[in-house]
Formats: sequence, C-alpha cells, structure tokens
Amino acid sequence: MNAADTSPAASSSAATPAAGPLSGLLVIDLTHVLNGPFGTMMLADLGARVIKVEPPGHGDDTREYGPFLGDTSLYFAFVNRGKESIVLDLKADADRAVFLNMVRRADVLAENYRPGVMARLGFSYEELAKVNPRLVYASSSGFGQNGPLATYPAYDTIIQAMSGLMSMTGFPDGPPTRVGTSLSDLLGGLHLFAGITSALYAREKTGKGTHVDVSMFDSTLAFLEHGAMEVTATGHALERIGNRHPFLAPFDLFECADGHVAICCGNDHLFHALSAAIGRPELADDARFRDNSARIAHVDALKSELETELKRQPAAHWLQCIHAAGVPVGPLLNVAQAFAEPQIKARNMQIEAGGITMPGTPFKMAGYADPHIRPGAPALNAHNASLRQEFMV
Amino acid sequence: MNAADTSPAASSSAATPAAGPLSGLLVIDLTHVLNGPFGTMMLADLGARVIKVEPPGHGDDTREYGPFLGDTSLYFAFVNRGKESIVLDLKADADRAVFLNMVRRADVLAENYRPGVMARLGFSYEELAKVNPRLVYASSSGFGQNGPLATYPAYDTIIQAMSGLMSMTGFPDGPPTRVGTSLSDLLGGLHLFAGITSALYAREKTGKGTHVDVSMFDSTLAFLEHGAMEVTATGHALERIGNRHPFLAPFDLFECADGHVAICCGNDHLFHALSAAIGRPELADDARFRDNSARIAHVDALKSELETELKRQPAAHWLQCIHAAGVPVGPLLNVAQAFAEPQIKARNMQIEAGGITMPGTPFKMAGYADPHIRPGAPALNAHNASLRQEFMV
Repeated sequence: MNAADTSPAASSSAATPAAGPLSGLLVIDLTHVLNGPFGTMMLADLGARVIKVEPPGHGDDTREYGPFLGDTSLYFAFVNRGKESIVLDLKADADRAVFLNMVRRADVLAENYRPGVMARLGFSYEELAKVNPRLVYASSSGFGQNGPLATYPAYDTIIQAMSGLMSMTGFPDGPPTRVGTSLSDLLGGLHLFAGITSALYAREKTGKGTHVDVSMFDSTLAFLEHGAMEVTATGHALERIGNRHPFLAPFDLFECADGHVAICCGNDHLFHALSAAIGRPELADDARFRDNSARIAHVDALKSELETELKRQPAAHWLQCIHAAGVPVGPLLNVAQAFAEPQIKARNMQIEAGGITMPGTPFKMAGYADPHIRPGAPALNAHNASLRQEFMV
Repeated sequence: MNAADTSPAASSSAATPAAGPLSGLLVIDLTHVLNGPFGTMMLADLGARVIKVEPPGHGDDTREYGPFLGDTSLYFAFVNRGKESIVLDLKADADRAVFLNMVRRADVLAENYRPGVMARLGFSYEELAKVNPRLVYASSSGFGQNGPLATYPAYDTIIQAMSGLMSMTGFPDGPPTRVGTSLSDLLGGLHLFAGITSALYAREKTGKGTHVDVSMFDSTLAFLEHGAMEVTATGHALERIGNRHPFLAPFDLFECADGHVAICCGNDHLFHALSAAIGRPELADDARFRDNSARIAHVDALKSELETELKRQPAAHWLQCIHAAGVPVGPLLNVAQAFAEPQIKARNMQIEAGGITMPGTPFKMAGYADPHIRPGAPALNAHNASLRQEFMV
C-alpha cells in the first residue's frame, strides 16, 4: 500500500529510474521553459524515459533562471528531474537524422513551440506520423494550434489576465489579482500530461497515435467554476469577493491575534457549533445570522462579529477549540510551514532529486514505487555520447 | 485535424456519447460535490461510460447548490455532463449486490469519500481487487489516504490556506488571497483523471489494476513553483508581490485610462520597444531601468512611470500600439469577455450539454470527435431501470 511505498526506506537509488506505471515508454521532449517541461516531468516521475532535446548554445533558457542553489538553477531543476539531455541542431542534416531515428522508436513526442514552428522545421504531426504512425505527438501552446489567437504571445500573466481568472481573484475594493504561481503555465502542463496518457491508452486499442493539442488558455477556462456558471446563469461576470465563498457563510479566512485561520461552515449546525466554540453562542440566535441566506446577506457584519472575538486569541488557540467543536478549520500557512507539516513526510511530498529538495509527485499508486531519492535534472548535453550511439544513423 | 473536429458541424447528437480515446471504458463513479465529479467528467468527455452512483434521498448534495438556471443547478450540471445516474443504498444487501456486479465488469471505480468510509462499507481497494483484479480504483481526498491529516476536514479554502498558496497570492500591503475559483478541488480532480489514465495504460501492459491515491493538498503543493523553489533556496517563504513577476520587469498588470493590460518584457530589447511604443523612449536610457536587475531594484518607480503614461489612453489604444511594437501584451478580461473571444469558438471551448452553455473540454485530439452538442447531466436516478436490468444479480 501507499504508506509503505512512499517511505524513504522503499526508495530506489538515484541512478536507477523508478519502475512506474509508464515504465518502458520512450518520450522525445522538445519542450522548454515551464509549461511543457512540467508535463513531461510527470511522465518521467511515473517511469517513462524522457530525452530532452535542447537547442545549440545554452540549451533551455531556464538553465539561466533563478532562484539558484550554488550554480544550479532551481527553476530548471524543479521541472526537469529524471530526464536525459542531448543538444540537437534541428536545422542541420546530421542532427535531423538522429532526431528522426528517435522519432521512429519513440512513443511520445512533446513540444511547446509557438504554433507553426514545428511545421517550418518539417516536423509537423502529419510529417512525423508518416515516419511513426504510433507516435503520440503532443503540443502545448498558449492559445492552441488553431484560431485567431494561435500565435498571439502567451505568457502566464497574459493568460491569467485574458481568461478572466485575474478578474475573479482579489477583493471588491482592490485590483484584479494574479495567482501567486504560474498557474496557467502549470495547468497547461498538467493537461498535456493527462492528454498524453489518455492518447497512450487509446493507442493500445487502436494501434494508432494522435495529435494531442492543449493550451494554457483552454486549460485555464476549464478551471473557472463559479465564474463560468455565472456567465451561463446571468450573462454577466462575477465581481471579486475576496476570500469568502459566494454562497455559504461563514466560509472565509479570518484574522486572529497573530495570524489567520480558514473556517468553513456549510450549514446551520456548524455555525451553531462555531458560535458556541468561540464563546459567542448568541450569534446563532441573531436574526441577521439565523440561516445561510441571512448570513450571506449580512456577510460583512458576520465577519466583523467573528473577528472581534477571534482577534482576542492566537490562531493556535482557535484552531484547537474550533476543531474540537467539529467545525472545519485550518491554519493559514506559508510555503515553508506547509512543507514542514508531518503530512508531507507521510505522503513523500518533499523528495530529493539530484540532491535538491523539491516537491514530490502527487500520483500515488499501489504496487508502484514512489522513490524519495530520484535522479536529478541533467547537465546540458549530458547524454550526448550515449544517445548518439543509440540513435545513430 | 482539430480545427475541423471542433466545429459545430462535426458534432454528434446529444443522445449519442462521443467516440473518444476512452470509448469502451466502464466507470463506476461514487464521487460527489466538486473535486471527484470534475475528474470523472473528463473521463466522460473523452468517451468513457460513467455511471454516477448516488445515495438515497436527494443524491449528490450539489443538485441543490446554486447558481440555478430555472430549476437546474449549474453547479451540478457543469461537472456531471454525459454521466448516467442510479441511486444505490450501499448499506442494503440488494443494492450492494447490484454494485458488486458493476464492480465485476468495471474498468474504473472513482470515489472521493473521506478516507475510511469505503473500507467501512466493505468496499476498500483490497476487497474490490479480489472481485476484479483489473479494476483501477481511484481515490481523491483532501490530504490523501494516509498520514496524520488523512481525515482532517478538507474544503478548498482550507487546502488553499494550508498549502501556502493563499500566503503567496495578493499584495504586500494586503491580506493573503484565495484564488477566485476552487482551485484545490479542481486540481485534485484533474490529478485524479490523469492518475486514472496512467493506471489504465499500465493495466494494458500488466493486466492488473491499482489503487490511485491523489489528494487536493498534494496536488496544490505540486503547483507552488517559485514558492517551493524559494524554500529550497533559502529555507524561507516568499513574500506576496502582487501581480508582478519575481525576477523580470516590467512583467505585470498595468492600469490604463479605462482598465488594465498585462505587459510581459522578458529582456532589454522588449523594454526598449515598449518605451518607444508608449512615447517614453528615454525610459530605456534611465539608469534605474538600464537592465532587468536595475528594473527589478526600482520596480515600483518603473510601474509608476509606465502607468503615468498608460493612464492617458484607454486599454484598447495601448493593446494595439504595444502589440504592434512586438511586445507581449494582453487585455484584462472578465469571464464574460473571455468567453466572447472568437478564439473560444475556434477551439470549441464553450459547448452545449443538455441545452446548457458551459466550458468545453481542453483536450483536443486528432481523429477523435470534440462534439459541440453533448449529453447533459442526468436527473437523479434517471437510469435506474436500465442499469438494474443490465447489472441485475
């Protein structure tokens, strides 16, 4: 079971790729920067062999991106663990031949160039499917391979702005707010991964590959939840409402004497228990707060009443007594605190790859290893000699 | 190719499930509320047959959640399209027998109960694997199936708070900020889907199912990007920095006369082009802004200088002239505006399911249909008679 699989004792050595559900697969990885590499990293995490093909010069741009640990770009290391690296000049005949030999034997090709670049190299899906009809050719881009925005410049901040996500995040009296992580890049990468695994399953049935075409924009639109529902319901966009739930109250982040707690009361019973737990049982009888509809109508007054009490004691106090009352509550943690939670060790969610501490894989599967020590990201062209030998013309 | 596949003309009728990469798969769906149903919806979107098993009474709680369109819960409709529904009392012998007959023939069972619930019903992975060793049994939970937080109450807001994501989102002088969508719920659902497809691929090789165990907490931790890098680099958490990029400037949301634009200058060349495009070429020669490091050191002054100019004209003006200068720029759109972009139609990213307008699937695959008209979410117990007939004891 998972508890045992995820313990450090069950880990394999750094030199041996893990046996995973995707073991035996060969992936040619033309992706670069964040979005694509995050997706192909998950293939490697689950056992696939991933060969990162980098351009001549300094390779993937992110090798020079901070933050650094010594000389090592953590930006590069965090999304390229477990891959091999070869530099190929895809405009030079000799290297194109090596590349095409890889294509003949690969299960997956992943790329996140701007739409049109692969076709100009002569490596469109249509061309490579002639070489290898079983190839799963997976493209991730900002806005997708077709449509009027196909080649529009796509950076995470632009996608967050154009998808409506920024307009929904933040406070009514504050500006639109970017999620504090490159969410649209990462969502595109996760959809790339899931599209590839779906296409690989289908290939087992049909014998044929396909072209998987995902985008950061589409991936973000699929995640808008209430924002998209509101457009269908009313034709209008939701206003920003800060940290609270649109339809339930109290369901928000609350300020204590020394920090914040999240409290989630989905029904009257829980609100009564909360009121009692904080020593304000009369709030449950207040006409303004008598049921969820009333509490939503008076949500600001409710927050003010609750915070008046919560600010009298530290968060640790309230976490203990609100949790003891059976009301869903949790601490506001920063990232360092989050990774210090004992849950992280129990779930093997902080691993060592190439000696660098980084998040583990969220995919836990019975019967497959989830190594605590994993191979790191490759130096540029580290596998040049062996790969040229293996795929020589 | 995708452009043709995604056109309304290529769509199938509402009554016919789409031929997709996952066609032929039988999924028993015990998931409820948002997280699990979002994951199993993607299985249905790609062609799997998904049977939603609901508890006696009112079924999935979200059938009673707003927003509504007439009598229809959009909350339910948006994540249950294309599924069948049957009510089973999993504590009653006759219904347990029907359920076990489904298990014998299913490819996938998905559930998102609190860890322990399935085992108490006698339906743990270990028990069901005896009935069907090929079963991919997939569990999504707040914190995972093991560890000290396994049964801790998990709502999206609590996971966003405990993962560090809220602490990273927002402005230096403002509060920690929740992403304006139930991101951790949805991320858990997407990881559930990707874990299932990975396990299905593996089953084709091994003949054996597995237990896929994903969580909202792990899924969110995997998405922290710079936040997690900073902990490795320094041991400390990042401070909130609003909408700007941590290492590049100008790379932020900027205010114009009537709205905002996102501008992303990743290098000096683009900054020079931007300065010229807004009629302030001298900014490129200002010592405070001479290279990216200088611009990051004076990022507030830089924003102030740029916004002084940008506020003189509407966003539409600046979008046109900054884009013409080759500088990555995009509009700040609300969700209604985002779905009105012509790109949405080109990518079939707004579909009709059961007559309700909702986001389409972000998975586009050559050779597979991406219907514009899809089957809607089922009424409670809508398929009771046919399913009891099919799986009768």
